[in-house]
Amino acid sequence: MPVNYVTPAADQLYAVAGVRLGTAEAGIRKANRRDLTLIELSAGSRAAGVFTQNRFCAAPVHVCRQHLASGDIRALVINTGIANAGTGEPGMQAARLTCQAAARILDVAAAQVLPFSTGVIMEPLPVDRLAAGLPACQSALVSDGWFAAAHAIMTTDTVAKAASLRTTIAGQEVTITGIAKGAGMIKPNMATMLGFVATDAAVSQALLERLAKEVADESFNCISVDGDTSTNDSFIVIATGKGRARFDSIDAPGWGEFKAAVTDVARQLAQAIVRDGEGATKFIEIAVAGARSKDEAKAVGYAVAHSPLVKTAFFASDPNLGRILGAIGNAWGNDPALCDLDVGKVKVWLGNGENEVLVAENGGRAASYREEDGAAAMKPAEIVVRVDLGRGAAKAKVWTCDFSYDYVKINADYRS
Amino acid sequence: MPVNYVTPAADQLYAVAGVRLGTAEAGIRKANRRDLTLIELSAGSRAAGVFTQNRFCAAPVHVCRQHLASGDIRALVINTGIANAGTGEPGMQAARLTCQAAARILDVAAAQVLPFSTGVIMEPLPVDRLAAGLPACQSALVSDGWFAAAHAIMTTDTVAKAASLRTTIAGQEVTITGIAKGAGMIKPNMATMLGFVATDAAVSQALLERLAKEVADESFNCISVDGDTSTNDSFIVIATGKGRARFDSIDAPGWGEFKAAVTDVARQLAQAIVRDGEGATKFIEIAVAGARSKDEAKAVGYAVAHSPLVKTAFFASDPNLGRILGAIGNAWGNDPALCDLDVGKVKVWLGNGENEVLVAENGGRAASYREEDGAAAMKPAEIVVRVDLGRGAAKAKVWTCDFSYDYVKINADYRS
Repeated sequence: MPVNYVTPAADQLYAVAGVRLGTAEAGIRKANRRDLTLIELSAGSRAAGVFTQNRFCAAPVHVCRQHLASGDIRALVINTGIANAGTGEPGMQAARLTCQAAARILDVAAAQVLPFSTGVIMEPLPVDRLAAGLPACQSALVSDGWFAAAHAIMTTDTVAKAASLRTTIAGQEVTITGIAKGAGMIKPNMATMLGFVATDAAVSQALLERLAKEVADESFNCISVDGDTSTNDSFIVIATGKGRARFDSIDAPGWGEFKAAVTDVARQLAQAIVRDGEGATKFIEIAVAGARSKDEAKAVGYAVAHSPLVKTAFFASDPNLGRILGAIGNAWGNDPALCDLDVGKVKVWLGNGENEVLVAENGGRAASYREEDGAAAMKPAEIVVRVDLGRGAAKAKVWTCDFSYDYVKINADYRS
Repeated sequence: MPVNYVTPAADQLYAVAGVRLGTAEAGIRKANRRDLTLIELSAGSRAAGVFTQNRFCAAPVHVCRQHLASGDIRALVINTGIANAGTGEPGMQAARLTCQAAARILDVAAAQVLPFSTGVIMEPLPVDRLAAGLPACQSALVSDGWFAAAHAIMTTDTVAKAASLRTTIAGQEVTITGIAKGAGMIKPNMATMLGFVATDAAVSQALLERLAKEVADESFNCISVDGDTSTNDSFIVIATGKGRARFDSIDAPGWGEFKAAVTDVARQLAQAIVRDGEGATKFIEIAVAGARSKDEAKAVGYAVAHSPLVKTAFFASDPNLGRILGAIGNAWGNDPALCDLDVGKVKVWLGNGENEVLVAENGGRAASYREEDGAAAMKPAEIVVRVDLGRGAAKAKVWTCDFSYDYVKINADYRS
């Protein structure tokens, strides 16, 4: 059960002109489930991506990077069941064959196809079954296929993740729709974080690459379930140019608004992944301000978000200040610039809005703090931890979930 | 129940000439338990320490650092129940008053006393009760008080941790005895890692400081329960000089042997902490070789040791190779030098001795690997993960435990 997240209905996901999606049952790993998705892009579309930094990155990630470098992407193929990671040279071969198979039926070059795999690691990808499933995907291609695709890319997700918006920017209508899957950094064994966001706006290639990175830094790169980065994590932004909005430089009218809209969709998807984190019972925002740099702020956010001690305390609705301060005190390990953090200037609040309580200041518990206020602040399913480092003007937010019995249960019992 | 650890009997802990220990019930936080320990050192003793790097370090850690700088330490005072961390200026005052109280009854200067506290964070230390308990500690001072002290410094430890050895080095008898407490990096809320090792050898101050650091790097700094560093972690090495062995420089005869012996005692203590880790059911050694530097090797060891995914897989006795490779692939986050890690050269073995199985090579699963061999290797309570990075000659070992239901239970339910 995700924390406060419901998949949008199919008719709430706007079609993006220039994008068609089709799914099929290819029997990649299990029978009787849609496990193969084909996304077809109209000629002239542009794509850019951000990928896992894990050194054991999967074969499809290598191939995606190569193909994106040459540009002119016309299709994406996504399979679930098998991650094609930790598969050495045969895995690279399987990823290339995937692209060739899709290229053949779509009459494009193999280098115009991006492959994505998610599922069990270190098992060979059954590329024959995958290729055999592609014609059914092609037959199923429709512009309102986002809802079906959101379901077909799931692995152990308990709900499909999708977000969509249509707005007017600089006088032109813009549509942005995206889907995502996985609990991101939570289970490299089975799940990868995959995110795909498409818009009908026209965006120059250089600007799109910048957009992908900047949007990821404000969405998928702000979430943590357990701190691990999977071998397959990928985030792709597509701009078909079939709409009227045009962005050729950061000075183009409406660029800031457009970037905010894409970020909004990506952030909804990223947060949905956390809300559906394994065993999650709480959704936690760590909002850090007063840092000397954004990196510093994020380092503190992640130090809190990654601490198993903090996460188990959240599960218990326990306002365990010592664990939070301890995590902040360790954050310099994420960013050495925090070595000279003056803990006497750090302030910490727990709660949200009216419930917010100042819990720590002057290197210790706030004089005004009462345990019952802290306990009240920890009760809701959505909790904000606000931190002011008192040393600058930069800020950042990180989203995470708690750490429950079910986390251990799912990860210890489960070997899909 | 610790994994394969039993506290040595009292008569297995050799007295160290020049050290006397006494314990008492001071009622720091709970009645009817020995919670105060006084360690008295003879004149001429030397002490050196290594402390937590957490920026929210506790008041006693600040005071220890100051007092060690002026040297000539004659006493250590250790209380359990209250950590005196996150207590701001009043906490500093309490730590200073602790030293003054001990100095008064021992007729030394306050700067010759080192204070240590472990227990609940952000609560005021009842320094009056502590001071009132010190005379009873003094009356109880005996040279064979190590066993009692090992028990009196416990918090949520399930067993007392102690180690001792007597050996002949360069023709002189040397005694080394130590005690430790806490699950180290596991529970900054309640538990601190404290380690105290004393020897009757004479060691120059400069050499002792170097020894403390080098020994910590091979023992307490090689363990991880959940990756968090507590606000109070401290490791102290004491050399009374009451024996005949003398070490004034690293060229002194037997220095290497002596360092190895002190490291042996410290490592037994450090491993006992992991074996008694919260909810631990397995003891895991991660032995990394083929690194370009010791730091690199440790970064890989810790990446594996800190991954909740790997730790839950160990709990399940699941040879989940993907999670281990994923963790290795993320290790560059701990040490950027690993950015160019060639995963094609990495080899991984699971198991121990005759049970050892090559599980990964050439960027994927080893051709010879059979799942049943991996499962057999994961069954024992002691497991070795051996990693060869194939890029150098440096190596390091890291010790950790698994991540069980009980870890969540203890840390979510527990607020001492």
